[in-house]
Amino acid sequence: VFSLTRRYRFSASHRLHAASLSVEDNRALYGKCDNPYGHGHDYVLDVSVRGPIDRLSGQVAGRTELDALVAHAVLREFDHRNLNVEVDAFASMVPTSECVAREICRRLKCAWPSVFPAGALRLAAVRIEETPRNIFEIDADEIE
Amino acid sequence: VFSLTRRYRFSASHRLHAASLSVEDNRALYGKCDNPYGHGHDYVLDVSVRGPIDRLSGQVAGRTELDALVAHAVLREFDHRNLNVEVDAFASMVPTSECVAREICRRLKCAWPSVFPAGALRLAAVRIEETPRNIFEIDADEIE
Amino acid sequence: VFSLTRRYRFSASHRLHAASLSVEDNRALYGKCDNPYGHGHDYVLDVSVRGPIDRLSGQVAGRTELDALVAHAVLREFDHRNLNVEVDAFASMVPTSECVAREICRRLKCAWPSVFPAGALRLAAVRIEETPRNIFEIDADEIE
Amino acid sequence: VFSLTRRYRFSASHRLHAASLSVEDNRALYGKCDNPYGHGHDYVLDVSVRGPIDRLSGQVAGRTELDALVAHAVLREFDHRNLNVEVDAFASMVPTSECVAREICRRLKCAWPSVFPAGALRLAAVRIEETPRNIFEIDADEIE
Amino acid sequence: VFSLTRRYRFSASHRLHAASLSVEDNRALYGKCDNPYGHGHDYVLDVSVRGPIDRLSGQVAGRTELDALVAHAVLREFDHRNLNVEVDAFASMVPTSECVAREICRRLKCAWPSVFPAGALRLAAVRIEETPRNIFEIDADEIE
Amino acid sequence: VFSLTRRYRFSASHRLHAASLSVEDNRALYGKCDNPYGHGHDYVLDVSVRGPIDRLSGQVAGRTELDALVAHAVLREFDHRNLNVEVDAFASMVPTSECVAREICRRLKCAWPSVFPAGALRLAAVRIEETPRNIFEIDADEIE
Repeated sequence: VFSLTRRYRFSASHRLHAASLSVEDNRALYGKCDNPYGHGHDYVLDVSVRGPIDRLSGQVAGRTELDALVAHAVLREFDHRNLNVEVDAFASMVPTSECVAREICRRLKCAWPSVFPAGALRLAAVRIEETPRNIFEIDADEIE
Repeated sequence: VFSLTRRYRFSASHRLHAASLSVEDNRALYGKCDNPYGHGHDYVLDVSVRGPIDRLSGQVAGRTELDALVAHAVLREFDHRNLNVEVDAFASMVPTSECVAREICRRLKCAWPSVFPAGALRLAAVRIEETPRNIFEIDADEIE
Repeated sequence: VFSLTRRYRFSASHRLHAASLSVEDNRALYGKCDNPYGHGHDYVLDVSVRGPIDRLSGQVAGRTELDALVAHAVLREFDHRNLNVEVDAFASMVPTSECVAREICRRLKCAWPSVFPAGALRLAAVRIEETPRNIFEIDADEIE
Repeated sequence: VFSLTRRYRFSASHRLHAASLSVEDNRALYGKCDNPYGHGHDYVLDVSVRGPIDRLSGQVAGRTELDALVAHAVLREFDHRNLNVEVDAFASMVPTSECVAREICRRLKCAWPSVFPAGALRLAAVRIEETPRNIFEIDADEIE
Repeated sequence: VFSLTRRYRFSASHRLHAASLSVEDNRALYGKCDNPYGHGHDYVLDVSVRGPIDRLSGQVAGRTELDALVAHAVLREFDHRNLNVEVDAFASMVPTSECVAREICRRLKCAWPSVFPAGALRLAAVRIEETPRNIFEIDADEIE
Repeated sequence: VFSLTRRYRFSASHRLHAASLSVEDNRALYGKCDNPYGHGHDYVLDVSVRGPIDRLSGQVAGRTELDALVAHAVLREFDHRNLNVEVDAFASMVPTSECVAREICRRLKCAWPSVFPAGALRLAAVRIEETPRNIFEIDADEIE
């Protein structure tokens, strides 16, 4: 496998709180991450793509196109934002690092064909470091 | 100079917005950091102390005492918090990294005598990494 | 694949020395790591688990449960220890990073059912950084 | 899978420029990386090998042998070099991180049998960090 | 002292070679850094400024103004460049990390009054990491 | 000030235990660092020197000479060693990071004149990272 990974960063705030759970259960499950006024992180976002090396350019994917895709589909709405309030998907989904990674992967997969229309290049995986101690990775194939 | 630095971390959200400025001026000054719903960071906090090496313990300062002081005077109220809403000082002060560092330094200096009552050990400096690209350092002597 | 990785650290000392080898062969094989008085490292331990995202919690695994498992099965006996002397398994096995990772993986796999009794969550891999230049990774499936 | 990864570094300069493309197309494709006088990077090179843990040594691979192989087959000709001018392969191939990784993998695979002649140990993957934001990984199986 | 540090990066190539020395002396002094075709680095540039915290903005210096100054006075001519060939100052000066830091400091000090015309804010120091193992720092006061 | 810092690393084991204290007092003071079988760290050692930039070489200090000095005066006896047992100074001094830094600084200052005999170059400071959370720095002027 040939895989290229580009690293991005975004700063965001969030609160971990499940509407369907009681106050006590939320506290037990999310601890201080359930703080009602929110808290925040500097997320590291690694986007991995797979494909053959283009004979002409010597690249698996154009950096400019990939960066523009990630900026438009993700960073524009995630960077310097409150995830619970400003990203629609998290109105009904707790923004854990798992759900943040899955939502980012879903967005990239949706927007993919409009930027990389044909051929062998495909989105491989999305990896989120919420903190250096808490990392979530998702295979793009998991997203239908 | 003998100086010992201990590194701590806290995750918090904030909004940069000066009540005395217009909407346009806030936008011009703070850019996306003025987002009304807030955003967040994983702050790195370095606390430096100075003093002679104790002949018996071989230490400049006891790690347990210093950690307890920082936890009580700072982390307890800053970690997993919204700085604007949950830390009183930021009701009337914009929580830039400069002001966060100054407030932390002020708190440590206040609590210092109750933990390290006498002698040559003193708080030397507080350093905040808001992000790896944005670092603020303050000499404890600047705080009266 | 959905995988969550939690990062832990422990400081330990060890000596690389195979009882079945001569003094010369040990020197040739392990070099300065064969120093009879030992030396030490700050190990980084990454524990990866795999499973579906729980619909209610938005998590693949509870952080509290996973941290408690690693603390009890590994860190309690490895952190601030002499691996050769204080961890039984290394009485008859050289504590190379390979063997340290395998032993940790074995312990986690043993203790797994008592903490995560049923269902789709499983231990995926253990990764040890002895130093940033020397990294060992083991698939949990390798441990019978 | 048991895999051991050793990390190496080398500093080199390069220019991204495809002889078959026009001046404008090179600019569009490679941007400032097409600067005719070159620029440079501190490359991080991770070499991963796979195999069983040797019962006697407790190791998957001897560090000395692996380091010598990488030094001889790669670092000797890549470190503190101009890749376009001093590495033959890049006379006719643009030294993108993709092509640098592939060339390193090809060299290691070629030299492998002379150092690790028989048995279960094999080269697994080569990973290049051109910068922390631009990472390329190649499975050794991709190289015929 | 209140000091704000902003971190920048640039990738460049260079050759260490003193015109006034013989081939042998250059080799002895600079080793493989004297390679005639050059090599390169990913430089980390830390720019530190000092001053009081502005009561209104809560900042020591505006990030936008500082970033624009560094981009215009330094990065524009250093990033993705060959320092020996493309930066005039290094036509007659060996681009060691010492001389690179001094030249950057000189440029920032020259351009300073046009961006920060009056008042208490001043350039404090410039720090260059050529590699993580080789760091040079210069007090702005050293530059006349 | 012009200062050059070179970064070195060494792996060592130690035990924090003061012979003059009771078992209970040692436990209270050093906690798990008092483990009788020792534990270990990967120390980061930063050596800073100060002086003018040599007009001919463009350097504050020759890298080769400085590296040789540190290797001979420090690393040779500290790397892959048990500090308590194998470094004489720690027979009667607890090897805290404070005392390790002071001993290293003392050794470098002693050996200095034999390597850098005359002139303006001087040892400025020694900085030890025992772990990323525990850092000690000493001005060379503190050592008489």
